[in-house]
Amino acid sequence: MAFVVELSRRLLAGEAPAVVGLDPRLSALPTSLLPDAPAPDRIAAFYQRVLPALARHVPVVKPNIAFFECFGSAGFAAYESTCATARKCGLLVLGDIKRGDIGSTAEAYAEGHAQWADAVTLHPYLGGDSLQPFLERCHPDRGGLGVFVLVRTSNPGAKDLQDLPIEGQGRALCDAVAAAVHRWGQELPLAEGYSPVGAVVGATWPAELHRLRRLMPNAWILLPGVGAQGGKVADLAAAFDRRGLGGLATQSRGVMQAFQPSDPDWLAKVEAAAEQFAAECRHVQQLAARAK
Amino acid sequence: MAFVVELSRRLLAGEAPAVVGLDPRLSALPTSLLPDAPAPDRIAAFYQRVLPALARHVPVVKPNIAFFECFGSAGFAAYESTCATARKCGLLVLGDIKRGDIGSTAEAYAEGHAQWADAVTLHPYLGGDSLQPFLERCHPDRGGLGVFVLVRTSNPGAKDLQDLPIEGQGRALCDAVAAAVHRWGQELPLAEGYSPVGAVVGATWPAELHRLRRLMPNAWILLPGVGAQGGKVADLAAAFDRRGLGGLATQSRGVMQAFQPSDPDWLAKVEAAAEQFAAECRHVQQLAARAK
Repeated sequence: MAFVVELSRRLLAGEAPAVVGLDPRLSALPTSLLPDAPAPDRIAAFYQRVLPALARHVPVVKPNIAFFECFGSAGFAAYESTCATARKCGLLVLGDIKRGDIGSTAEAYAEGHAQWADAVTLHPYLGGDSLQPFLERCHPDRGGLGVFVLVRTSNPGAKDLQDLPIEGQGRALCDAVAAAVHRWGQELPLAEGYSPVGAVVGATWPAELHRLRRLMPNAWILLPGVGAQGGKVADLAAAFDRRGLGGLATQSRGVMQAFQPSDPDWLAKVEAAAEQFAAECRHVQQLAARAK
Repeated sequence: MAFVVELSRRLLAGEAPAVVGLDPRLSALPTSLLPDAPAPDRIAAFYQRVLPALARHVPVVKPNIAFFECFGSAGFAAYESTCATARKCGLLVLGDIKRGDIGSTAEAYAEGHAQWADAVTLHPYLGGDSLQPFLERCHPDRGGLGVFVLVRTSNPGAKDLQDLPIEGQGRALCDAVAAAVHRWGQELPLAEGYSPVGAVVGATWPAELHRLRRLMPNAWILLPGVGAQGGKVADLAAAFDRRGLGGLATQSRGVMQAFQPSDPDWLAKVEAAAEQFAAECRHVQQLAARAK
């Protein structure tokens, strides 16, 4: 089933609009788990244990491929197996790959990554034709991929280019990207009012979120940066419609590092943190429903 | 030795300002070479044969990681082994990875890719802090990595965002990125007048190249899009100074697909195409030297 169809189905059935990021850091893995194994094996084993617990509380996980591929081919294999394990647990997989290239290169990236993930994050700088191989795969009859285009990122340096004012438009570069996301999305079938072409807007910029949501009324908005980066779930109501759709709050370290590496009770702590995060996300849905 | 130090040393010694792109397409491999082996093995075997021949004519190869990682972990292993083989042949490796992410994610990408390549291509959209982990590794005493930031790409869609006019600056987004490339480069030691922070400017845009070179007088400019994409080496003189430094013309298909897959003489044809491309690149250096 297409990513956006399944996502809205799950949220309408009461699952939380919450995404847990998987950014494996060796120093934050439980020391009890295969302490002497190679790094990629430790990572894969960690997610084998953790993913069934996460699946009880959130609908989507977001493995960040950088933390896998930095270990080379064995790390890449751990990425593939983590994606497969997540799917087996019933989770949707949003591959945080941030790829962006042209022509046949974009086609190669799309062909590869659509195998492992149900949705992916993408760079916009190279323009519409660079996204085309991914957008084609968004059609429900061509795989139903979801894409999330970087619009306004959560880091301080987001301002360097994304805030540059565009002449004659009375708005910034990230607004122009948001408008393009809306345009690209209009060429694909909507599911519950939302297109397969979503956007990334850092949870660290609530004012911009408000403005950008108006420019992309049909886009799922992925909201990273909750927790360690300073974003707060309570500030994200603008992303949601009154049915609780449209936003996906995203947290990584706050859930996946909710324990000391030496803690024997680490799995219960991760699960408790995921449950707590899901509850916060449901709460902001309710705030949004009341306000609209 | 730092990438830019070694690069200028080689060009001043008479090597051509030419980069051959490695974009492995199965349909374009010689049918005689391991026809029944898995794709990544065929790719690795192809480059094992080809790289010694390329090393006789060009100083740099640019493996495009998309065409490797689309085969998953085995493809990633072929990327690693191709980089290692290229280095063993005395080639500099410019990893065409087009990564771009923030904070600890950027650090993970930098840590991984600095192992395999001497230089990499990067996305600018996330701003200066997203490049920092790579820029730190550009210092000669921290690995001497080279980076090439996407400024103006070779595809038609480059216009979508890169040409947007920035208010009050009288220039386009790609000009603002070029100015930032220049700024980032000023914080690092120069080699023969060039910084480790280079730029990608498509060979398909000679007019823009002229303008962008003025904004980045100390940047090595990587010029992809020669050949199949329509760029012509003869149009690239603006990238070069009178010593023949500053530009790197880049061709992939024109060299690596200079044969029919069934041709038993394929290796000689690749080598002849590389030699011819190198000669064209030397010729444009001479044009530039005469004009300046």
